Amino acid sequence: MRNLVIQTDFGTGSSSVSAMHGVCAIVHPDLKVSDGNNAVDQFNVLDASESLMYLLPYWPEGTVFVSVVDPGVGTKRKSCVAKCANGQYIVTPDNGTLTYIKEKVGILEVREIDESVNRLPGSENVHIFHGRDVYAYCGARLASGIIDFEGVGPAYPVEEIVVADYPHPVKKDNEVSGMINEATEHFGLVGTNIPFAWLEECGMHYGDEVEMVVEYKGEEYMKGVFPLEKSFGYVEVGQPLLFSSEMETVMFAINRGNATLEYKLGFGPDWVMKVRKISA
Amino acid sequence: MRNLVIQTDFGTGSSSVSAMHGVCAIVHPDLKVSDGNNAVDQFNVLDASESLMYLLPYWPEGTVFVSVVDPGVGTKRKSCVAKCANGQYIVTPDNGTLTYIKEKVGILEVREIDESVNRLPGSENVHIFHGRDVYAYCGARLASGIIDFEGVGPAYPVEEIVVADYPHPVKKDNEVSGMINEATEHFGLVGTNIPFAWLEECGMHYGDEVEMVVEYKGEEYMKGVFPLEKSFGYVEVGQPLLFSSEMETVMFAINRGNATLEYKLGFGPDWVMKVRKISA
Amino acid sequence: MRNLVIQTDFGTGSSSVSAMHGVCAIVHPDLKVSDGNNAVDQFNVLDASESLMYLLPYWPEGTVFVSVVDPGVGTKRKSCVAKCANGQYIVTPDNGTLTYIKEKVGILEVREIDESVNRLPGSENVHIFHGRDVYAYCGARLASGIIDFEGVGPAYPVEEIVVADYPHPVKKDNEVSGMINEATEHFGLVGTNIPFAWLEECGMHYGDEVEMVVEYKGEEYMKGVFPLEKSFGYVEVGQPLLFSSEMETVMFAINRGNATLEYKLGFGPDWVMKVRKISA
Repeated sequence: MRNLVIQTDFGTGSSSVSAMHGVCAIVHPDLKVSDGNNAVDQFNVLDASESLMYLLPYWPEGTVFVSVVDPGVGTKRKSCVAKCANGQYIVTPDNGTLTYIKEKVGILEVREIDESVNRLPGSENVHIFHGRDVYAYCGARLASGIIDFEGVGPAYPVEEIVVADYPHPVKKDNEVSGMINEATEHFGLVGTNIPFAWLEECGMHYGDEVEMVVEYKGEEYMKGVFPLEKSFGYVEVGQPLLFSSEMETVMFAINRGNATLEYKLGFGPDWVMKVRKISA
Repeated sequence: MRNLVIQTDFGTGSSSVSAMHGVCAIVHPDLKVSDGNNAVDQFNVLDASESLMYLLPYWPEGTVFVSVVDPGVGTKRKSCVAKCANGQYIVTPDNGTLTYIKEKVGILEVREIDESVNRLPGSENVHIFHGRDVYAYCGARLASGIIDFEGVGPAYPVEEIVVADYPHPVKKDNEVSGMINEATEHFGLVGTNIPFAWLEECGMHYGDEVEMVVEYKGEEYMKGVFPLEKSFGYVEVGQPLLFSSEMETVMFAINRGNATLEYKLGFGPDWVMKVRKISA
Repeated sequence: MRNLVIQTDFGTGSSSVSAMHGVCAIVHPDLKVSDGNNAVDQFNVLDASESLMYLLPYWPEGTVFVSVVDPGVGTKRKSCVAKCANGQYIVTPDNGTLTYIKEKVGILEVREIDESVNRLPGSENVHIFHGRDVYAYCGARLASGIIDFEGVGPAYPVEEIVVADYPHPVKKDNEVSGMINEATEHFGLVGTNIPFAWLEECGMHYGDEVEMVVEYKGEEYMKGVFPLEKSFGYVEVGQPLLFSSEMETVMFAINRGNATLEYKLGFGPDWVMKVRKISA
């Protein structure tokens, strides 16, 4: 019996998530179903992908992730299950949600869901909520062993998996850059896809001051000099800092403050961060 | 061992829901407890009823739903358990929460909770949080088989169950009407209690344009001509449409937009939607 | 197998909580993990303490509570597990979160987490998310019996546990006072640490009108005469009242209204409530 984790963009106060839990309980009473993040940014497949990247390593091998961020529901995008190189499974519309998984984790095989067998019986007239009728249902069948991976439906080439376009991280001599991929309202954490180890490789170390530039749609949006530290507590309350996120990527924040709101930052392909070594 | 599902109007960030889970774990360690929707509209028994209607069919037969929307806590409303015609049980104050269940699903039998046996020992001086001390405790005893349905307390006539008043759906020759029963802030979905099949019966088909009127307190509030489609993806981004909800009722939305906010719509007995066939 | 309950200040829409659940599932597949309250006031150790006080008695004896409100993450505060006099365990940074537990429940023994054995392998370079790598991991090992309490790490004196300063409740002849320790946005409930039984002891009874004064930073902020009742339903809709919370402390609210917003009330050590008997 594998674990099953649900992530959606339905928001935290939604009966729809409970209906997905219920369908899993109908498929198999012993299935262990848990919530991932149901506050994925609406219709944002890159945010869904980022959230999966975040969760994948911290669940037991063989966990089935059901991800429902599905702006194209009811139209022609494929519904699929991907078997990842790290042993996890992802049930999702093939709409860009698998972007980072394909690039960074690796996908061994992908199969299109055969709705003639893996769709909740009686749901044929429902065209809008595949999260419940297709993804949770199929995911629960896979997680409980009612079907094996072959039972999902026909395989198709991994190369055909839809990927979304975004600014990849770049390392130069004295500068790293990449996309801002999160800017939370809650703690005001501003995360990027820049590997933190690159800073060290560019000669930037804990305790240094570094220059940070944020660009929005190619234009400079803000610029400043900030300390590079291990954690919040190394700077005064109210002071900004750069540090390594728990994904070991470059992150920007204010100790007990909110950098997202303070600097009015957003996230996604339009937002780029650059971090530069300051010459001695 | 039955499933137990908790729904409340306590909001998503509340220790109170966890205390209810904990009481269930105290009653029986093997009980499977899951959250339904803890963001039911505050004090809104019709919204609680709608949410139950939404969840009931998607949980295994015999599931015990504990619903705590209880504006009259500490006063004389009955605390009850209803046995539904579809095999589910509902533990709730008898305050209108059972309205749609009584009318549309059917209630086979209803019993008043005998607090002399089905109330958390030691909670006698607590007059405000029956969700924990009475409803979760009694529901957990029922779900775990410590008591059977008769053990809840004395039966009373199903006809005495409190129902709330609301606009019922009506089908005319070329027009259907009914109550707007949800208008979410999250996706901006505007749902009604009008069976979607009625549109077809009135000669309105997928691909047609139809006229929609919204009335607030009996006055026309908005009016427009909108396409009737299978799903969001059939119209351009930013375009409104009418379609079938996953409950197979008439729903209004904007593709990747928010119809609730865009048209400033609300829900409840004051809000009526009419959909009319446009003459050729 | 003990229950494990997670509480954090991460907010309700956070992948971080799911990563903590996942780490628990990796430690032991049969562990029962549930969410307490993930909307603890940010960085507020007294609110974390209050939330634990609220939950402790309503979970089975021996439950392991993992509490992550950790403004000093990455700095020198200890990570510990406390064994409470009521049989519960609390895994937390030793930063004031244990304040009320130490004073009111009693702590039998406290141990500092030995990260050389009780830290998620491979997380050594991560300096910011101890909730996942230390607290959830160590808590799951304890709850599943992989380690016993001694296996947490070395004991240190209970007297050394960090406590935060706050206004303690005081009973005079005709007046009680104490701290406002919650003022929810959701229902607008305004709670205090004043034992409700003290009102009775000061000659104030259900049905009486009493005088209430709120002070902010030592200055009078609001004052009024309000009824003392068993529950909301004893006053008209829209009317304020004083009553006993489910923790049997003095609480202030408006029947179906929101006292927090209506009177612009806050909570924490700066906010004091006094309730006085009105002379006949």
